[in-house]
Amino acid sequence: MPTATIELSGHIIDSMMLPRIFDAVMDMGGTFRIEEFHVGQSVDETSYTRIALSHDDIAGLTSIIAACQQQGAALVETASARTEPAPTDGVFPDAFYSTGNQPTRVLVGEDWVEVEGIEMDCGIAVEAGRARCVAVTDVRAGDAIVCGPAGIRVTPVERSRSREIFGFMTSNVSSEKPKHLIIRELAAAMREVRDRNGRICVVGGPAIIHTGAGVHLSRMIALGYVNVLLAGNALAAHDIESQLFGTSLGIDLRNGLPIEAGHEHHIRAINRIRAAGGIRQAVEEGMLTSGVMYECVRAGVEVVLAGSVRDDGPLPDVITDMIEAQRAMRAALRGVELCLMLSSMLHSIATGNLLAAVVKTVCVDINPAVVTKLADRGSSQTLGLVTDVESFLRELSEQLT
Amino acid sequence: MPTATIELSGHIIDSMMLPRIFDAVMDMGGTFRIEEFHVGQSVDETSYTRIALSHDDIAGLTSIIAACQQQGAALVETASARTEPAPTDGVFPDAFYSTGNQPTRVLVGEDWVEVEGIEMDCGIAVEAGRARCVAVTDVRAGDAIVCGPAGIRVTPVERSRSREIFGFMTSNVSSEKPKHLIIRELAAAMREVRDRNGRICVVGGPAIIHTGAGVHLSRMIALGYVNVLLAGNALAAHDIESQLFGTSLGIDLRNGLPIEAGHEHHIRAINRIRAAGGIRQAVEEGMLTSGVMYECVRAGVEVVLAGSVRDDGPLPDVITDMIEAQRAMRAALRGVELCLMLSSMLHSIATGNLLAAVVKTVCVDINPAVVTKLADRGSSQTLGLVTDVESFLRELSEQLT
Amino acid sequence: MPTATIELSGHIIDSMMLPRIFDAVMDMGGTFRIEEFHVGQSVDETSYTRIALSHDDIAGLTSIIAACQQQGAALVETASARTEPAPTDGVFPDAFYSTGNQPTRVLVGEDWVEVEGIEMDCGIAVEAGRARCVAVTDVRAGDAIVCGPAGIRVTPVERSRSREIFGFMTSNVSSEKPKHLIIRELAAAMREVRDRNGRICVVGGPAIIHTGAGVHLSRMIALGYVNVLLAGNALAAHDIESQLFGTSLGIDLRNGLPIEAGHEHHIRAINRIRAAGGIRQAVEEGMLTSGVMYECVRAGVEVVLAGSVRDDGPLPDVITDMIEAQRAMRAALRGVELCLMLSSMLHSIATGNLLAAVVKTVCVDINPAVVTKLADRGSSQTLGLVTDVESFLRELSEQLT
Amino acid sequence: MPTATIELSGHIIDSMMLPRIFDAVMDMGGTFRIEEFHVGQSVDETSYTRIALSHDDIAGLTSIIAACQQQGAALVETASARTEPAPTDGVFPDAFYSTGNQPTRVLVGEDWVEVEGIEMDCGIAVEAGRARCVAVTDVRAGDAIVCGPAGIRVTPVERSRSREIFGFMTSNVSSEKPKHLIIRELAAAMREVRDRNGRICVVGGPAIIHTGAGVHLSRMIALGYVNVLLAGNALAAHDIESQLFGTSLGIDLRNGLPIEAGHEHHIRAINRIRAAGGIRQAVEEGMLTSGVMYECVRAGVEVVLAGSVRDDGPLPDVITDMIEAQRAMRAALRGVELCLMLSSMLHSIATGNLLAAVVKTVCVDINPAVVTKLADRGSSQTLGLVTDVESFLRELSEQLT
Repeated sequence: MPTATIELSGHIIDSMMLPRIFDAVMDMGGTFRIEEFHVGQSVDETSYTRIALSHDDIAGLTSIIAACQQQGAALVETASARTEPAPTDGVFPDAFYSTGNQPTRVLVGEDWVEVEGIEMDCGIAVEAGRARCVAVTDVRAGDAIVCGPAGIRVTPVERSRSREIFGFMTSNVSSEKPKHLIIRELAAAMREVRDRNGRICVVGGPAIIHTGAGVHLSRMIALGYVNVLLAGNALAAHDIESQLFGTSLGIDLRNGLPIEAGHEHHIRAINRIRAAGGIRQAVEEGMLTSGVMYECVRAGVEVVLAGSVRDDGPLPDVITDMIEAQRAMRAALRGVELCLMLSSMLHSIATGNLLAAVVKTVCVDINPAVVTKLADRGSSQTLGLVTDVESFLRELSEQLT
Repeated sequence: MPTATIELSGHIIDSMMLPRIFDAVMDMGGTFRIEEFHVGQSVDETSYTRIALSHDDIAGLTSIIAACQQQGAALVETASARTEPAPTDGVFPDAFYSTGNQPTRVLVGEDWVEVEGIEMDCGIAVEAGRARCVAVTDVRAGDAIVCGPAGIRVTPVERSRSREIFGFMTSNVSSEKPKHLIIRELAAAMREVRDRNGRICVVGGPAIIHTGAGVHLSRMIALGYVNVLLAGNALAAHDIESQLFGTSLGIDLRNGLPIEAGHEHHIRAINRIRAAGGIRQAVEEGMLTSGVMYECVRAGVEVVLAGSVRDDGPLPDVITDMIEAQRAMRAALRGVELCLMLSSMLHSIATGNLLAAVVKTVCVDINPAVVTKLADRGSSQTLGLVTDVESFLRELSEQLT
Repeated sequence: MPTATIELSGHIIDSMMLPRIFDAVMDMGGTFRIEEFHVGQSVDETSYTRIALSHDDIAGLTSIIAACQQQGAALVETASARTEPAPTDGVFPDAFYSTGNQPTRVLVGEDWVEVEGIEMDCGIAVEAGRARCVAVTDVRAGDAIVCGPAGIRVTPVERSRSREIFGFMTSNVSSEKPKHLIIRELAAAMREVRDRNGRICVVGGPAIIHTGAGVHLSRMIALGYVNVLLAGNALAAHDIESQLFGTSLGIDLRNGLPIEAGHEHHIRAINRIRAAGGIRQAVEEGMLTSGVMYECVRAGVEVVLAGSVRDDGPLPDVITDMIEAQRAMRAALRGVELCLMLSSMLHSIATGNLLAAVVKTVCVDINPAVVTKLADRGSSQTLGLVTDVESFLRELSEQLT
Repeated sequence: MPTATIELSGHIIDSMMLPRIFDAVMDMGGTFRIEEFHVGQSVDETSYTRIALSHDDIAGLTSIIAACQQQGAALVETASARTEPAPTDGVFPDAFYSTGNQPTRVLVGEDWVEVEGIEMDCGIAVEAGRARCVAVTDVRAGDAIVCGPAGIRVTPVERSRSREIFGFMTSNVSSEKPKHLIIRELAAAMREVRDRNGRICVVGGPAIIHTGAGVHLSRMIALGYVNVLLAGNALAAHDIESQLFGTSLGIDLRNGLPIEAGHEHHIRAINRIRAAGGIRQAVEEGMLTSGVMYECVRAGVEVVLAGSVRDDGPLPDVITDMIEAQRAMRAALRGVELCLMLSSMLHSIATGNLLAAVVKTVCVDINPAVVTKLADRGSSQTLGLVTDVESFLRELSEQLT
């Protein structure tokens, strides 16, 4: 019967690593035997365990090992990572190791090297003693791609022991909770990141504009709290519509009333920016003098507008090829420490796919299903808030001012 | 072929009376012939039409007439309302006229008399030249109950021609609308009602307390903006829990964190009030010194706490018999002109059942399905807002201060 | 510094008892020291731990102990349970032990006696060597009520090691999962319970009737799969409306189209049953010859219809006093092993409050928020399904036939 | 004061044209005077009205006219449509007429010519006596683009007088309705379209696969009920994952249980198809032998897979440029008469943007907000169903077999 031995250390009980490993083994039809177990006697001490795993067949055992690795377990006797060359451009070897978004190291020769740019559902290319995460669209024929579980070590971000806002509330999405203090702590965290020149990313949907919250986001940008803005055509188009026509999707932003024939305003706004050649040009020629996109141009925010098949127009600034858009987002996200995902399921999921688990993330949506969906995706340090994006941004920008 | 002639006047086209009547006739398999039609030539002029209805059988025609009456049509040749005696206590005659919540008159002898206390799904009792709306639980054997469509005239509340907040937004529940101006106009309407000693009712659920919005509601009560509070055991119990223990359903209201064993607090709070004998007594003996219920006692708000089968406890102030509770609510609602329904589906529907269509109503819930359900129920002047109740009450109480 | 020692055994890691205890101690500001730890070496072996807890003050320690007890920990050195007399009817002593819904024993003299009728948020009355769970509304002055944590032992229902439908899916509510096999396994579980004369309870809302699923539920009743039906006025009234008028809340059940004036049908149906004196009488006099309520009368199902403040009518069979209704539900639930909660938030929560954690429960609703709310409440063996109640009942009744 | 005269005929009252025109004039601050009014005396007769509109300024009047035109009104004295040349590629003249999705004609010289390929939010290019709808991305410098309201005539699709499933239920999205008959009528409509070689389009999301409904859709394809499939990477990738690995997003489709490490299956499935060169190649080389995509290849269904920024992979068949994808969808939708939108908000909105109002559309989603959003977008003949996509497709495919 195929067998392997793994070990695991840290706050393995209350960080849920060990319960999840037990679950995985049982779910996948394997068995385990605990060979060693030292329990941390108090809150600050760590625990250690060594576990022998077995399964009827080698494929099953391999899957169990992979699942345990994602929880932070490592094979006791490990060889260097095995690689195979990618067969053609854009294709991994069939047995490629599929990454998670937790910090991951690879045993190259005798060194454990950190995988650069870790991201979910990618491969690991090894070259000249370095390991980097590579998307399937970016792999080139012949790249040495890690295959199988040997030589892999994942270090899950542990749940915080202190009761800070990130982590302990993971997947806690209720709308029936007080949000005051959470927003205050978030503002403090943003101030701290900004003050040491860290990078903050905002992912936003058009509801920010529709609800009249554009002014709050504009203020946050002007105050230097946004380094990267990831959005789609809609946020930018409705922001510009609101500046040129006073409406958002034809709704008068002063009073919330629909304006008959106001529905056309967004396509007229897009057409004018197309005529100008782009958002920056529209700012420079004085056509656009306020709003979220204007503040982004003024403050030098790194903006990536990724297109979608439902777009009207789109604005000339929108990247219409999705592989290009993902590359641009990946580049913009480099170094981001804090990410606010505001009322945009599509762009939030896209961003979540690209983020490492160490990035602190806040998801805000009035629909609990969206918050649950986002909070469930990978990041270990996600705070989900079910609330109105306008009131969230109003209060956050007041706290930041 | 059975035939009847109805007439209709007012803004019958844009108030949707006429389109709905055409729909009803066609839906129910009838036919119509327009005998006369005067159209109002401008916005201020009213229109008039006289229509002959027919149907294969008399029962179908009767149903069509009833449907047209609810839209404001009246039989051209009408006799006095026909009555039958109620057969026993708590039972209407089988052919009883079932009321809507629009203003309704009955032809008694030669006089059109207004039905007092109009409410949906009730009967009309006629006595000594007066007509009153009577619930099936309150009818007594022998009461003269109106049967059939003769001698009935309904006057639907017309949609406002001005763009005020009530009415024009009916069933417009989007969370993606700016809410600032709406809340400002609502505050103005509340101030106006209060200043002429009109009555304002708040229907509230425990999410008000859970989200930390109790302080805002307390302030509104202290400022005299609430004359009637309709709620259940949960709102009162969690309000008192929050005053005695600092938690709401075990969640620390200062920081939103769950307190282990805090779950018990609400039943401990209820037990203490039971020991005191009631909320008023707890206030008088100094055990309860702040919060929503405290402010209600201090300000003399008329409070009805209606029980429900899911209640823990309940508090001694809760009316546990539902027929008693409906009677108490009906009494408390007398004279109410403005009603805020906040995060309570059960009590909001219960209240909506009892309200006349002329009462202006605002429904606030973070769940669009609840707002839709409430806004669809009868009242012609309902404003639905999909938003966080905490941010709604915070902004409203700021506007009112 | 106040200190106490607890012990814990079983599958304490993967059943989450130990992680939750660590969390509770840290959340509540306490410290722990692990004095002994034996880990089960394989899937079938149990673990054991003894932990010293401490906290700055005795009240904090008491809360920590209470939280640990709910996870199955027991004080190592324990005295008999301490009792105080209830001060008056309907009031517990202030320090009463507040129950959870897990199996609970009390040390009376030298015997650990099982608390009878365990239920959440109640007290424990001790008398003549027996312990029974008592609701605050049912306590009598002088009853000996357990106070404080001494002499209490809770045995949480452990998560099943086998992958059966109850338990492993707890709070798994996605609508994006295949439901075929789950319904097949549920049908098998129902067949097994019925065949050994176990009791099955259905809690149902009016959406069962509105969606046309009444025929499926009727068939299940006729086949003997329902012993108890807990519902409100609406389920029964719309079921009867559908039999007498072919509509449900005015919607034609043959084609889903609204029938103008059909809205009145439910109040007319209620009036007729009131005239007959009740549902059983209506069946006996031949007025009601099919439908859910008819089948319940014929099959001798124990029915409790609990009123609510939003009821129209209600039917004469509805219990309008909520304390009476809770007592009737409690009595009907005695011996129930399997409970289906179908599209009724109010009655499902009410039932969940009364159920012991050992009862297997299935919650079905098309709204994920309702399923989450129900699945979160206490029962350890809850399966939440987000789906259409009509298609659920159609498939389930096909499986059962 | 600027004035214009419009006329309007048809079932202008119950088709809501006239009420909406009155609303528009009042909302936009204009006034009207009814100059002529003939009312259809019975259900089959049409009505006619001529109305003089006025507004303080010409821009306001122009907007009012545009709004009235969308309701089917036409200017009484009209000149030929005015055109301006497009200033550059991809930019309309600033005053371009922005299209709706209703059938639209343009007065070119003395002929009213139908606008070809009508679609929302586009311009109208006139050339050689023909008029065609043109997206802003497809306009070329110098194209003659219609500007202003002159010479435009819109003919809204009237609400059906018969009670067929499309139209009368528009925006009726309740989950609490019986769906049997509706699905039966939809099946009949699909059979009728197929039998006369009409085209049916399915827009689908991955929930079809996740819920195990892939087999039902496969059967419908094999039976010839699907001519066009519009989807994204996810539907195809999870369909192929389910065929190669038996899972969908790592969930075992036989029993709904998560498979640890099963999360990787979808990226492995994508990698294999990338290695094969595409879906058709994978079918031809025998790697893919069943499932939705397999049946599409076999039946010659026109498939457009449009990419999105959240895609993993993607499959080589996915069009990653959004403007290309919109063009491909537009081409595939030519001649489609019936469109089923199943559990895909993104692709459904994208498709809705491209559809003419005459196309009958059914939207199915378990989330009422999605159904509302889709049903609100333009098409006059939309049926919204809030239900589980698996049970919908199961029942529909049974009806079709």
